[in-house]
Amino acid sequence: MKLFSSVHDVTDINELVADALRLKHAPHEHKHLGKNKTLGLIFLNPSLRTRMSTQIAGANLGMQVMVLNIDKEGWALELQDGAVMNGTTVEHIREAAAVLGEYCDIIGVRSFPGLKNREEDYSEAIFNKFVKYCGVPVVSLESATRHPLQSLADLVTIEELKTRDRPKVLLTWAPHIKPLPQAVPNSFAEWMCKADVDFTIAHPKGYELNTEFTNGAKITHNQDEALAGADFIYVKNWSAYEPYGQVFGGNEDWMLTNQKLQQTNNAKVMHCLPVRRNLELSDEILDGPNSVVIHEAGNRVWAAQAVLKLMLEELE
Amino acid sequence: MKLFSSVHDVTDINELVADALRLKHAPHEHKHLGKNKTLGLIFLNPSLRTRMSTQIAGANLGMQVMVLNIDKEGWALELQDGAVMNGTTVEHIREAAAVLGEYCDIIGVRSFPGLKNREEDYSEAIFNKFVKYCGVPVVSLESATRHPLQSLADLVTIEELKTRDRPKVLLTWAPHIKPLPQAVPNSFAEWMCKADVDFTIAHPKGYELNTEFTNGAKITHNQDEALAGADFIYVKNWSAYEPYGQVFGGNEDWMLTNQKLQQTNNAKVMHCLPVRRNLELSDEILDGPNSVVIHEAGNRVWAAQAVLKLMLEELE
Amino acid sequence: MKLFSSVHDVTDINELVADALRLKHAPHEHKHLGKNKTLGLIFLNPSLRTRMSTQIAGANLGMQVMVLNIDKEGWALELQDGAVMNGTTVEHIREAAAVLGEYCDIIGVRSFPGLKNREEDYSEAIFNKFVKYCGVPVVSLESATRHPLQSLADLVTIEELKTRDRPKVLLTWAPHIKPLPQAVPNSFAEWMCKADVDFTIAHPKGYELNTEFTNGAKITHNQDEALAGADFIYVKNWSAYEPYGQVFGGNEDWMLTNQKLQQTNNAKVMHCLPVRRNLELSDEILDGPNSVVIHEAGNRVWAAQAVLKLMLEELE
Repeated sequence: MKLFSSVHDVTDINELVADALRLKHAPHEHKHLGKNKTLGLIFLNPSLRTRMSTQIAGANLGMQVMVLNIDKEGWALELQDGAVMNGTTVEHIREAAAVLGEYCDIIGVRSFPGLKNREEDYSEAIFNKFVKYCGVPVVSLESATRHPLQSLADLVTIEELKTRDRPKVLLTWAPHIKPLPQAVPNSFAEWMCKADVDFTIAHPKGYELNTEFTNGAKITHNQDEALAGADFIYVKNWSAYEPYGQVFGGNEDWMLTNQKLQQTNNAKVMHCLPVRRNLELSDEILDGPNSVVIHEAGNRVWAAQAVLKLMLEELE
Repeated sequence: MKLFSSVHDVTDINELVADALRLKHAPHEHKHLGKNKTLGLIFLNPSLRTRMSTQIAGANLGMQVMVLNIDKEGWALELQDGAVMNGTTVEHIREAAAVLGEYCDIIGVRSFPGLKNREEDYSEAIFNKFVKYCGVPVVSLESATRHPLQSLADLVTIEELKTRDRPKVLLTWAPHIKPLPQAVPNSFAEWMCKADVDFTIAHPKGYELNTEFTNGAKITHNQDEALAGADFIYVKNWSAYEPYGQVFGGNEDWMLTNQKLQQTNNAKVMHCLPVRRNLELSDEILDGPNSVVIHEAGNRVWAAQAVLKLMLEELE
Repeated sequence: MKLFSSVHDVTDINELVADALRLKHAPHEHKHLGKNKTLGLIFLNPSLRTRMSTQIAGANLGMQVMVLNIDKEGWALELQDGAVMNGTTVEHIREAAAVLGEYCDIIGVRSFPGLKNREEDYSEAIFNKFVKYCGVPVVSLESATRHPLQSLADLVTIEELKTRDRPKVLLTWAPHIKPLPQAVPNSFAEWMCKADVDFTIAHPKGYELNTEFTNGAKITHNQDEALAGADFIYVKNWSAYEPYGQVFGGNEDWMLTNQKLQQTNNAKVMHCLPVRRNLELSDEILDGPNSVVIHEAGNRVWAAQAVLKLMLEELE
């Protein structure tokens, strides 16, 4: 694997999930794979889970890992081709990416969307320039429209905790106070549509995701109906795809509560984190027995390690 | 040892000091202890000595060490229980701590006091939430009211440099231009009260420390008297405990000078650093033969390594 | 070698270049040299290439590498001797450097000039204080007036890519919108004056470099004349040495173009990066077949590794 940016880069998601679970039980058995190999983790945005889990995953595989907050510690990046750089940007992404490719055997990149220009965000302009110009394998650490390491960890968690075949999985929109990217729900949706689960998406009218990601999912505006019998509930806010990046207010009653949980099959509650307590998810859910959000965050290590392992095997 | 937050967490401080000194002469003999173990160093405040010395201590023990400036590189933390997170904080400390516990075998946390609310600071609200929610052993990298790795390094330094049994140790207040925490003097006092030294605290009226930390110490407002015959002088500014966080101005004559040193037993001068030159301590002292502040800073490595070693031995 | 701050610290530059090229083909053969040794990379300014290449170089040699953005992650540094520190600075460089020397076996320091006070910048006040007070070997990661790791990588690149003995090398000034340091051109000039190349410097009137660095170089204000027959063209902006730090505007026609390249001996185009596209260098040059800037950046690893290797060999 030379690129891990979406579910479409994976030949066999079931095998990848199985490998992640094998690594969870034997994290240090492949240290030879990464010997004398360097992993560069490049952040244009904040990170806790992604940074630490991928750092550990690389170290578990014997890699030397370097973290760079490129805009803060390096130079302000120019992203536009053809720009006359007489403003505040100091280094073009073409050079930055190519130089990182000289130094690293594998690169991870985090680059959030601006949520202003849909075409630009959905073209994955920044992430794809890193891929194009660095010349080495690239792992998405969350890009403008997808967060595949999160989705893989989510699927690992479902596989690990499911109590019946083809569990019923619900992605439900949650309230927030500011416009958030669609990357996590897009990505979760496209992974669930390929996984052996019964998948539904529930959201208020206006929050329809791009159908490219939801093809195959049941979609409803009725949260109660969707909750009925669910085994896993994935809670997440996102802003509108159309008009792009908008939020419409209201819908506070979409926050999951213990009462709503009663309609489910004693569902496990998931969230990618960070989560705004008592806005997206109540204290009672997060501190209650149904929340698996910490366990899910723990699985980020094994998702990252399975992906890096595949890449290292091809580098040998 | 599952927690290192104060002198009360240590069973035998003499043995801990002895082990630190053993490690100083054989730093790399315990690399197996930390193999495949991860140390996460989490900073909510700046650091030089603590960060680097603990990073080296972990590496000397074979650990993989990750440093995270959590508020700058991660997400703005919510600290209040029950908060409706519709403001500027993005992640609750409950999740942040629990996730760090998933990723790390041992966590170090630095969290300074606000100096506004004494009850909140002295309850160690932030530090204790990390301990409570992370579920793994925690080392204080300086909390609101204590700096135990510093105090251990201080005691190691005294043990190493003393020229007689039961040396006379003086903690003396020094001038500053802004209110500083009581963490270092609190911590130094409670360690000295347990150590085999003759311990005195001198400060202007109004700067009385919480007696919980100074129980057993001689306390005086007469610096000259206290200097007489001292073997070690620990210089440090702190703000008032009551009214909390206040400074009263004046007292510039409390700055240690070479002339004052003449009253001592050729005392070694200590300070935790960073030190404001010619305000807390004069150039002549810091650049003179009696200063041991750099040597003391060097001992931070062995203090941290002795603590981490104890924790790793119990993890095995 | 205890200090690498300029070409004058190197006994035999040809041997150093040769060793860098040997390391390029066998990067991991000297891992024993750095075992249980710590490299501290201290940044007072941003960095991408220097940070990552030196980090990898240290790791290739088996060292434990720590990176510290000292002003952001540590404490605001006081640089003046004798200062009464009652302002915004928290730690004096004397203590900071000495403490780093306690923790690290080798230190790298990056410290840019202020471009306000020539005497201060050219005395290398900050860098030299690190050297003076840390007490361990120091590598310049770019100081106020020189960037020797860059220059060594440049010479390695020329040695590697030259197609004839004693190639013709041209350092040519390029336009910019703000005043830049003279460190890179100073340093490149003093290395080229010692190397076996035919070296010329071209710049508009007013941008004369300090002759201490250019002694032995041909200097011209006629870029066209200088381009004729050149094998390597090193493009770089710099501000005036006299009046110090000034820029005079105009001279936009000094930007290298493909048309200008035709006058050369199919010259390789070099730049230290970061480069402002279409201001210092055109897209057509940077994306064309004559640019070697990425290759040159890659060689930063081997330059740093050759220098660290020399230092480690003396530490043993």
